[in-house]
Amino acid sequence: MLSEFDLIKRYFAQHSTTDPRIALGIGDDCALLNPSPGMQLAISTDMLVSGRHFFADADPVMLGHKCLAVNLSDLAAMGATPIAFTLALALPEANPTWLQGFSQGLLALADEHHCNLIGGDTTKGPLTMCITVFGELPPGSALRRDAAQVGDDIWVSGTLGDARLALAGYWKEIKLAAADHKLAAQRMHQPTPRIALGVALRGIANAALDISDGLIGDLGHILERSKVGASLHIDSLPAGPILSLQPLAKRREFTLAGGDDYELCFTAPIAQRAAVIAAGLASNTVVTRIGCVQAEPGLRLLDDFGQTVSLQLTSFDHFTTP
Amino acid sequence: MLSEFDLIKRYFAQHSTTDPRIALGIGDDCALLNPSPGMQLAISTDMLVSGRHFFADADPVMLGHKCLAVNLSDLAAMGATPIAFTLALALPEANPTWLQGFSQGLLALADEHHCNLIGGDTTKGPLTMCITVFGELPPGSALRRDAAQVGDDIWVSGTLGDARLALAGYWKEIKLAAADHKLAAQRMHQPTPRIALGVALRGIANAALDISDGLIGDLGHILERSKVGASLHIDSLPAGPILSLQPLAKRREFTLAGGDDYELCFTAPIAQRAAVIAAGLASNTVVTRIGCVQAEPGLRLLDDFGQTVSLQLTSFDHFTTP
Repeated sequence: MLSEFDLIKRYFAQHSTTDPRIALGIGDDCALLNPSPGMQLAISTDMLVSGRHFFADADPVMLGHKCLAVNLSDLAAMGATPIAFTLALALPEANPTWLQGFSQGLLALADEHHCNLIGGDTTKGPLTMCITVFGELPPGSALRRDAAQVGDDIWVSGTLGDARLALAGYWKEIKLAAADHKLAAQRMHQPTPRIALGVALRGIANAALDISDGLIGDLGHILERSKVGASLHIDSLPAGPILSLQPLAKRREFTLAGGDDYELCFTAPIAQRAAVIAAGLASNTVVTRIGCVQAEPGLRLLDDFGQTVSLQLTSFDHFTTP
Repeated sequence: MLSEFDLIKRYFAQHSTTDPRIALGIGDDCALLNPSPGMQLAISTDMLVSGRHFFADADPVMLGHKCLAVNLSDLAAMGATPIAFTLALALPEANPTWLQGFSQGLLALADEHHCNLIGGDTTKGPLTMCITVFGELPPGSALRRDAAQVGDDIWVSGTLGDARLALAGYWKEIKLAAADHKLAAQRMHQPTPRIALGVALRGIANAALDISDGLIGDLGHILERSKVGASLHIDSLPAGPILSLQPLAKRREFTLAGGDDYELCFTAPIAQRAAVIAAGLASNTVVTRIGCVQAEPGLRLLDDFGQTVSLQLTSFDHFTTP
């Protein structure tokens, strides 16, 4: 049987890097990084648990991609460029087919973002992945949750809701044509971290985060931390291409309170509208203006006629959602 | 029921730090660190799984201590001083009593080492903890596994084997008096990270690591990476106070191939003997010379008469050990 050390060597020892910031990678008690002089380090960690964040029989290539993508998405939401990451992995068994697929999906996305695997841990246990990712950015340029200003526009990247729609398909809440389900499921299984957009928004956006638990709940964190309120034009929300074919009520529900979108939600001054659109073009990412930050606390949902809409929606919470 | 955010606020939001290296802690997409100018960053990650690394009913205070201790031990083995850590936690339920105890044990050790909790993730799932720890050290001073030199002495900190003896007690392999079992179990549940010794050994020791899977296996990593061999004086190994009362065969077995010791094993030139002893005194840590590094590959075990001893011992491996 494959030992812990063989397993790491065979599947996770990436081709050696020429990145001068990485002084020592996998194989010692610690990895060693040489931070770029004058830059701030951004750090985020996410744990994914089988049966909770993904199906136990999930395709390992897509799973490898998703594990790193959700972490890179946190760097994007801060405006940081990736440097490196660590991976801790609990596996029920050392299955070569699964490991081959998982490492392939993981390292392909890592290569795309020049983000090196520098260390980790493997152990036997219920399938669980924990990635900690490191990025850098100039001090003072981070897109924080507490920086929204009254009068800011609220923007969102890409489209929302197709990941949630795919889940509804798996759960048989909604019957989807096989081809549609497959397309929607790509958004669920292979989210795109918006790194280039996050970096392009430095100095332009005020506050930002990535939408993982649903727009309303996540935007709520910006409002709470910034001590402001907001109005959202709910029929301006960019629904995913498959969700767009669904009735209005589902479009509203899944764009507002779907999960697993991994799009950026950010606020920026009105004076920066042209700059935001330019940042979207430069990073090849659609950006849509969806509302505005207001002094009055709370979140108001407005329809196309400017009328307040009352919806019972809740954001996903790991300990209160059944 | 306690929500994910309430849980973090209530149990893990440490009193605010005055450490200028921590620009932003818990609560945003990323934490932000300002690395000390000219210092290298040391990073290590460890995952602990219920039923594998600890018993499901383990005391939460001791468990909180142990989770961070095993990570700090990796910093110690590199000669790094702690700065901060992240915690990802999968919990079957949000149990206030357990969380109170766990965070108490965790944060007490964190405070002792001025190591701030700067971020994390909580999710529902089989009880699993993943900590990633950050430390710093001057470039070029890291105690690497590949730096042992032929002629070096081999040293070990503290004592070995009491943690393994405690496990033998739990498993009923060995019958221990209740008081003895309790003392040995402290070594298993509350290992002491040798941070001060690791820092004191900068510029004195060549290679180092921490012993987590057993001395022979772990020393084997130094030998393999440094392309050298060694002789160990197995009856010079410092057995823990409770293990010392056991017969010779058990003393040898548990000092050589016990696990969970979290002591440092390191090599240093003969010319540094006085400096090593001074480093031990300065850090209030017993150090014992146990062998020497040789050009001939392999590990030779010698008894008090200088005779080679042949023992069938294996190091713990998560995927090959049953």
